[in-house]
Amino acid sequence: VGPEALLSWKSKRTFTSFGVFFLQMGWGDLGVFGEPSKETPNLDQMASEGMLFLDFYTANPLCSPSRAALLTGRLPVRNGFYTTNAHARNAYTPQDIVGGIPDSELLLPELLKKAGYTNKIIGKWHLGHRPQFHPMKHGFDEWFGSPNCHFGPFDNRVLPNIPVYRDWEMIGRYYEDFKIDLKTGEANLTQIYLQEALDFISKQQASQQPFFLYWAIDATHAPVYASKHFLGTSQRGLYGDAVREIDDSIGKILKHLQKLGISENTFVFFTSDNGAALISAPKQGGSNGRFLCGKQTTFEGGMREPAIAWWPGHIPAGGVSHQLGNVMDLFTTSLSLAGLQPPSDRQIDGIDLLPAILQGKLIDRPIFYYRGNEMMAVRVGLYKAHYWTWSNSWEEYSKGIDFCPGQNVSGVTTHTQEEHTTLPLLFHLGRDPGEKYPLSFASDEYQRTMEQISVVVQHHKATMVPGEPQLNVCDKAVMNWSPPGCEKLGKCLKQPKSDPKKCFWPH
Amino acid sequence: VGPEALLSWKSKRTFTSFGVFFLQMGWGDLGVFGEPSKETPNLDQMASEGMLFLDFYTANPLCSPSRAALLTGRLPVRNGFYTTNAHARNAYTPQDIVGGIPDSELLLPELLKKAGYTNKIIGKWHLGHRPQFHPMKHGFDEWFGSPNCHFGPFDNRVLPNIPVYRDWEMIGRYYEDFKIDLKTGEANLTQIYLQEALDFISKQQASQQPFFLYWAIDATHAPVYASKHFLGTSQRGLYGDAVREIDDSIGKILKHLQKLGISENTFVFFTSDNGAALISAPKQGGSNGRFLCGKQTTFEGGMREPAIAWWPGHIPAGGVSHQLGNVMDLFTTSLSLAGLQPPSDRQIDGIDLLPAILQGKLIDRPIFYYRGNEMMAVRVGLYKAHYWTWSNSWEEYSKGIDFCPGQNVSGVTTHTQEEHTTLPLLFHLGRDPGEKYPLSFASDEYQRTMEQISVVVQHHKATMVPGEPQLNVCDKAVMNWSPPGCEKLGKCLKQPKSDPKKCFWPH
Repeated sequence: VGPEALLSWKSKRTFTSFGVFFLQMGWGDLGVFGEPSKETPNLDQMASEGMLFLDFYTANPLCSPSRAALLTGRLPVRNGFYTTNAHARNAYTPQDIVGGIPDSELLLPELLKKAGYTNKIIGKWHLGHRPQFHPMKHGFDEWFGSPNCHFGPFDNRVLPNIPVYRDWEMIGRYYEDFKIDLKTGEANLTQIYLQEALDFISKQQASQQPFFLYWAIDATHAPVYASKHFLGTSQRGLYGDAVREIDDSIGKILKHLQKLGISENTFVFFTSDNGAALISAPKQGGSNGRFLCGKQTTFEGGMREPAIAWWPGHIPAGGVSHQLGNVMDLFTTSLSLAGLQPPSDRQIDGIDLLPAILQGKLIDRPIFYYRGNEMMAVRVGLYKAHYWTWSNSWEEYSKGIDFCPGQNVSGVTTHTQEEHTTLPLLFHLGRDPGEKYPLSFASDEYQRTMEQISVVVQHHKATMVPGEPQLNVCDKAVMNWSPPGCEKLGKCLKQPKSDPKKCFWPH
Repeated sequence: VGPEALLSWKSKRTFTSFGVFFLQMGWGDLGVFGEPSKETPNLDQMASEGMLFLDFYTANPLCSPSRAALLTGRLPVRNGFYTTNAHARNAYTPQDIVGGIPDSELLLPELLKKAGYTNKIIGKWHLGHRPQFHPMKHGFDEWFGSPNCHFGPFDNRVLPNIPVYRDWEMIGRYYEDFKIDLKTGEANLTQIYLQEALDFISKQQASQQPFFLYWAIDATHAPVYASKHFLGTSQRGLYGDAVREIDDSIGKILKHLQKLGISENTFVFFTSDNGAALISAPKQGGSNGRFLCGKQTTFEGGMREPAIAWWPGHIPAGGVSHQLGNVMDLFTTSLSLAGLQPPSDRQIDGIDLLPAILQGKLIDRPIFYYRGNEMMAVRVGLYKAHYWTWSNSWEEYSKGIDFCPGQNVSGVTTHTQEEHTTLPLLFHLGRDPGEKYPLSFASDEYQRTMEQISVVVQHHKATMVPGEPQLNVCDKAVMNWSPPGCEKLGKCLKQPKSDPKKCFWPH
């Protein structure tokens, strides 16, 4: 596709809808990325009909900050989705978190709404669950899903089970009204989320309204589940069953777009919010292929993600891109597709990927790897420099919490926070995707490369204005005791007295 | 393809030629198997036009025994390609090896010859270099390549450089007449081997003769090389340059078959003789994806191989097979395609893969993982039981020889030879392809599975008749001092006095 096609498309851009599949799957979980069971025929076909991104990243090795980054186009350290309670910690939005997405942040659906889009989120919001953070106060027109992750509590006694919302009100709670059988792993949630997507798309097609569908379902997060039809069908066990169900669902959504005749008007992107959680392996954990470590870390296994762009008639089938991409780019790219400009009053970290997707261009841009407000590493071209290394503490590790099981690279996967700001550890990700062989500090290659990288880092740090940290304070009183709608259902629980504390983030 | 197609093909089977690409590449070196640089467009296309085998193995974690196994259809412990000098050692055919392929072994080309096939080997023979072991004494009609690997010696002084043969006579030596620049990595050998293949195929097509082409070139074995056109073109460094050149060559060979109109009469198979040599990483070593360890080991990284079957018009395009396969199956499968029976006077370990390839069947069969004459492990279905574990000795490891760099699985990647014959370590390769999580001995799954596996192992051991070990004795006198043809070239070297000794096999 040359610039003519881009221009001709730009002139009739009114009806480009967007679908974003945003899940927790590792780079190595897809057949097309080398999963040895090769059980994702629909995602593999999506890639063969669209464009595969091999060097695509999330903005954080944990879910909430990555989701905030996707929707704001900004690094978590700017949009407030980080903590300063301790150095270099991953933080998210558990039930007792006080903070959430600030009103000052402009979310993708807010901007799209102005251009006539209908926006729906299906699945896990994760940007704060107190009333002011509700997704429909931040641009979404519809919501079906939960504010927090479906892992515990399970009995709704000491702590409230996570609520499931339809739009403004909760309609039940996980483990109570929305069953997940922890023993068998059976739950039909993915089927419910699939149906929501199909219905929404049908409705939008019928009313000829452009839409933004954000399909951010809970699976494959632990505790892993799948519906009965998929249980026991994968070589990979329960985790594989869940992957197969997601793969099947995505196939059905894409076929639905095609059947309705709107696939050429719908830009669809599949990616993930963090690397596979290797701590849940082998029974509930996925694969990051040959990359080092997993979720929670700033090694490639924690942040390099599977990514596929699909837009029949526009994206050449079977394309492969080495563009360094980031989930934040989906913000800027979607705005570009909608003919909108990104906000000019703030720093936007996402770039417009359309030249890479439609014209095969490679845009030079760095990737930053953060934990909290500490820039742990940076990638420039094929080189990655670690300024800090840490997997987790010896204390956590001694409890059996291992983010790099069976992978121990001396001096790299460290259990103390190691500062390398004077002499960063440098890897060439082409020759050494597994981050096993740091370049010699004395080599010409090291010297030459670090000179270039230092300039990028200096510029980044000099212009960095961190947002107000949102993930510092926790309070049992803010939990989902009595979400709106609980009265109708008779499911209001008694809220305890407020007792705000610093949240404890061990990693 | 149903049984009708198989039958209809069988009725006109006269002209099925075979091409076997047999190289040293790791499972993870191909784009289609998830190599993050995705630089093998031709092999990826071969897979998309043919059938990808995800669970395909070599017969040994080292080159010579695997090559002997492919050509005899028999485990190295049967065909003599092993040592008894020390327990559980990998052995091969260096220049001072006294043994080689016994005359009593029936090689694939010997059998095909009787059916009118012309057989050519291009590349590394590796089944012994003394006169009685010459490939043309074992069924090949033509040979272009070397008897041993192209790694040292390099200066032709103390020891003779490896000779390169055309048919019966040597036409020069590596590093002397066939240059490999160890500094830049430049060598045009792969181009020479490519041209040999194209010429042979053209000649066979012109004379309408069925053929067996065994393209077993040296690259990507260390020292890694590529020709000028490919140097510096890969993200992966020199190793990637070599992979790209091989990929390009295979693409040219397949296109040549198509251009000549004989692709539908030629069954082509691509696979590898052992896992990527991680000791050569990152500069000269490949990738075994997420599998554990590499060459020399009986973990998956040492023996699971990339594998593609290609036969346009017969094999459905884009097929994927989970058939447990082995390089020895190429012996039996080729005979089946040629309408021949495997020899009935000896144990053949290879099975006919045609039902798996043409009818999508899954044939139940085990995979045995040997070091020397010790059965280290066995795979049955998705389960793999280790009866012995060993990476290498502490002594070798302390010298920096590491077959599992950055991968250390406690109790699994052991540096002492650990016997588990009473309670084998059991892994589920679907849930845990990386062999990181042995099943609990106390679990029902363990008990149930080991009962099944024990029967398979008992039967295997009860019927095992080892061949005379060929790789026990080494003697400097047998080196390539004066290969046939050396007089014409003035390249005969003085042979030292015979001094046979037990070969030393450290791993």
